[in-house]
Amino acid sequence: MKIVIDVMGGDNGVLPIIDGVKRALKNQNFQAILVGDEGLIKPLISQDIVDRVQVVHCSDYIRMEEAASIAAKRKESSIYVGMEIIRDNQAQAIVSAGHSGATMSLATLRVGRIEGVARPAICTLMPSITANPSIILDAGANTDCKPEYLVDFAIMGYEYAKNVLGYAKPRVGLLTNGEEDSKGNELTKEAFKILKSYDFFKGNVEGNDIYNGSIDVVVCDGFTGNIVLKASEGVATSVSYILKEHIKSSLSGLLGGYLLKGAFAKLKKKLDYAEYGGAPLLGVNKTVIISHGKSNARAIECAIYQAIRAIEANVCEKIAQAFVNKG
Amino acid sequence: MKIVIDVMGGDNGVLPIIDGVKRALKNQNFQAILVGDEGLIKPLISQDIVDRVQVVHCSDYIRMEEAASIAAKRKESSIYVGMEIIRDNQAQAIVSAGHSGATMSLATLRVGRIEGVARPAICTLMPSITANPSIILDAGANTDCKPEYLVDFAIMGYEYAKNVLGYAKPRVGLLTNGEEDSKGNELTKEAFKILKSYDFFKGNVEGNDIYNGSIDVVVCDGFTGNIVLKASEGVATSVSYILKEHIKSSLSGLLGGYLLKGAFAKLKKKLDYAEYGGAPLLGVNKTVIISHGKSNARAIECAIYQAIRAIEANVCEKIAQAFVNKG
Repeated sequence: MKIVIDVMGGDNGVLPIIDGVKRALKNQNFQAILVGDEGLIKPLISQDIVDRVQVVHCSDYIRMEEAASIAAKRKESSIYVGMEIIRDNQAQAIVSAGHSGATMSLATLRVGRIEGVARPAICTLMPSITANPSIILDAGANTDCKPEYLVDFAIMGYEYAKNVLGYAKPRVGLLTNGEEDSKGNELTKEAFKILKSYDFFKGNVEGNDIYNGSIDVVVCDGFTGNIVLKASEGVATSVSYILKEHIKSSLSGLLGGYLLKGAFAKLKKKLDYAEYGGAPLLGVNKTVIISHGKSNARAIECAIYQAIRAIEANVCEKIAQAFVNKG
Repeated sequence: MKIVIDVMGGDNGVLPIIDGVKRALKNQNFQAILVGDEGLIKPLISQDIVDRVQVVHCSDYIRMEEAASIAAKRKESSIYVGMEIIRDNQAQAIVSAGHSGATMSLATLRVGRIEGVARPAICTLMPSITANPSIILDAGANTDCKPEYLVDFAIMGYEYAKNVLGYAKPRVGLLTNGEEDSKGNELTKEAFKILKSYDFFKGNVEGNDIYNGSIDVVVCDGFTGNIVLKASEGVATSVSYILKEHIKSSLSGLLGGYLLKGAFAKLKKKLDYAEYGGAPLLGVNKTVIISHGKSNARAIECAIYQAIRAIEANVCEKIAQAFVNKG
């Protein structure tokens, strides 16, 4: 198994990304193809992994402040070169913490959409009070959606939850402002009409259902999904900020924090984006994992595991088959 | 000052609502007009408050499962009767934990929109890591919005934050999927173009900005606002569930929980909907406070305080003036 890692474009430089690759190489059997500036990469490749790493030099990368639309012209950029490698079947997946718009755009243009998929979607794992995370899609690829896009997201999310997460019968819900069938905006009401003929569709769900274990796949447009994701991160960050301030403020606080460190560790693990790795872009012909720009080594490590699970589960083929069956 | 309280229609019956009224009467100088079934209400009116309470009997109320559209025909319902009282200037505000759709519909139809306001909006206070809460509107009154509605929400939110919350220069942001000017969906991009001519407008904000103190007024359509609200509640509930489970699980957990009880109390106060009372419906000619159906006594008490602050701040008149100036 070969996985491309775009080493450029992350907020914190190449170091955490290569560290993440090293960690993953220790635990999993795969070959890493690192695309990026070889002058930066090669000094960081230690002797113990040199046989399992291939470096493909690129002189350019897409900066965060650049427009995604420019990516198609930047053939020497790391993400362009990386996409060409998976397109040409030299590797099965790519992980990138670089410019996510550029990654989406090149994945769609160069690797290509699965036949029948109107728009690829970003699929993000969300913590739940149960042992099983839910997934939300689209988490930001498509700000304005048509009802049929949401139906495609539902099908792709179902296949991902079933094949990659291993849920026997994933329950799919439509994110709206109320659980009654009559709720929703114009977009979701139209999508509801189409979705209700699918067995996996459990109807409308509300924002809190993402976390309470009542649903496995949460479908929404990418504008709403992105806002929900960031609002949720915001609440979690605020809660831990308030707790930390109190814990630091006194001796009894420090002791209390110490006694509850197991709970805080569990919470941190549940809420830490790094543990979830990255977000697969579903609907393209190969496995593409979009990682946070601020990814640390643990996040890159987990993103690689996610890529491996997706490859092993043949999720792209499963999604393609689902769209053949959809007709 | 007279305030109407719709005693019917809350999820937990009349008791918590009347308890909330009693608490508020102890702390604030106002007259309460209770609308609802006098057979249920009168036995709960103790001697100490009898002089400050007037009961208006109604034989009907709108059930949660009924359609909001029915409210206009139900002239004997508590919310209809209550609205007529404020419409006729017999009181300055109404608080209701009943059917929120019915409340919105009757407020608009019977009390009337402020001239120039296209759509009234629900305005919800949100906790922030700073001492000052932010507000989000629309939190659910209008699922599908036009760009001009969002502009109206911005103006109303600004006036509320300035006059009721007392912020000297409220900062207003548009909730989108990225802070750059180019981000947003079709709706917010159009609204952005209009809003950028307003001094109070600070541009696009993201979901996490609601809680980090960087913005005072968060503007969005009611579909997005409602989802964000419930998702945020969901995260907070999940975090406290996980902490509680751990605290209960061992002696050291119990001790840790005890030592941190100050922090948990602070968090609870920040995150508890009850402390925020209810959500004002902005854009109608009188003060209308929409409370949670599950409101406890504390929530009703706080909703009454909110009504008093809104009346004292003349917020309806301030909003009306802002729309005259808007032209």
